[in-house]
Amino acid sequence: MNLFRLDASILPGASASAEIADIAEAEWTAAHPHATVTRRHLGTDPLPADAWTLATTAAFTPAPDRTPAQREALALSAALAEEVQNADAAILAVPLYNYGISQHFKTWVDLVIAGGGATTPLLKGTPAVLVTTLGGGYGPGSPREGWDHSTPYLERVLADLWQAELTVVKRELTLAATTPGMEGLRDLAQQQHSEALAAAHDAGRALADH
Amino acid sequence: MNLFRLDASILPGASASAEIADIAEAEWTAAHPHATVTRRHLGTDPLPADAWTLATTAAFTPAPDRTPAQREALALSAALAEEVQNADAAILAVPLYNYGISQHFKTWVDLVIAGGGATTPLLKGTPAVLVTTLGGGYGPGSPREGWDHSTPYLERVLADLWQAELTVVKRELTLAATTPGMEGLRDLAQQQHSEALAAAHDAGRALADH
Repeated sequence: MNLFRLDASILPGASASAEIADIAEAEWTAAHPHATVTRRHLGTDPLPADAWTLATTAAFTPAPDRTPAQREALALSAALAEEVQNADAAILAVPLYNYGISQHFKTWVDLVIAGGGATTPLLKGTPAVLVTTLGGGYGPGSPREGWDHSTPYLERVLADLWQAELTVVKRELTLAATTPGMEGLRDLAQQQHSEALAAAHDAGRALADH
Repeated sequence: MNLFRLDASILPGASASAEIADIAEAEWTAAHPHATVTRRHLGTDPLPADAWTLATTAAFTPAPDRTPAQREALALSAALAEEVQNADAAILAVPLYNYGISQHFKTWVDLVIAGGGATTPLLKGTPAVLVTTLGGGYGPGSPREGWDHSTPYLERVLADLWQAELTVVKRELTLAATTPGMEGLRDLAQQQHSEALAAAHDAGRALADH
């Protein structure tokens, strides 16, 4: 058994998404003590900014004519796709940044698709937990309702394109405890924090039982 | 007068978005023959993958304790924000990639926000033309309806966050002419191509008249 664990926080020492994902991972590991965990941290080890372009142009170039950089990019994209395809279970911890997708996660998606094929359901039948964290509130009636442009894309790629059996654990208001002006949201934030930690235990156990 | 022109195509030699943006730019330049054009090509000169993390951690670090890499990232993000703020008009050509935002554009947005402030409307009162191109069809009733996760985010950042006076020129089905299986869509694609070129002339003239 092989668990694929991905992180995208750019501040790993204080990562709200990692806190939740760690709980799910611990539940999975407790049930599979001799299994492997394959880690990919996009925040601390970002993928190169030019790799996807190189891999894309390489696909249009006859193999003998490819530059060393193109060959390296193709190998990277193939390795990233293989990492996804080899997962028996997956936990992905991806924060919302600036109302949109993590730049490092999108770079990874582009490379995985380049390596695995645009229409290959790389996670078909694979149980996966997506942990996502948002600094503010984006629910119905909030001033920023509709400004979460990250979660729908994460779900699109993981559940629709790659066909994972996806469970989402979402925590909002992660900045309320430390941000001036958000004092009035702290009780709600604390409640959502507690709920997310409980949901992580449940999701981790369900992942292990799958 | 200063026009800011941004491109994000990773294949500049065959860029459908650049074709449209070039028309709008030519209209603007014809009306402002002595003006400057400031260019930023994110596809051919991608921004570094670690710059935003460095700029973010630098903001938490007292100035004397910052590393050279952090100082460089802060300077880059400030320069990118200034480039946006100094625009009297803007044309941005950003393709959809893998159902989502261009990775290079998101990296740029993160850095501009780091340099310009999370709540600063950098394009307030500035007329801007967003050109976006999509390989397939995403309109109502199409199989991929709802899969365009790029355009809503582009509009969110440019019109809502930065408060540009935004005109959008969108061209779908750019891959129909060359992709097996899309033969039945070629007439529609050709029509949409013609409409986009006409819309580019109009948008460029309106930009110049603003």
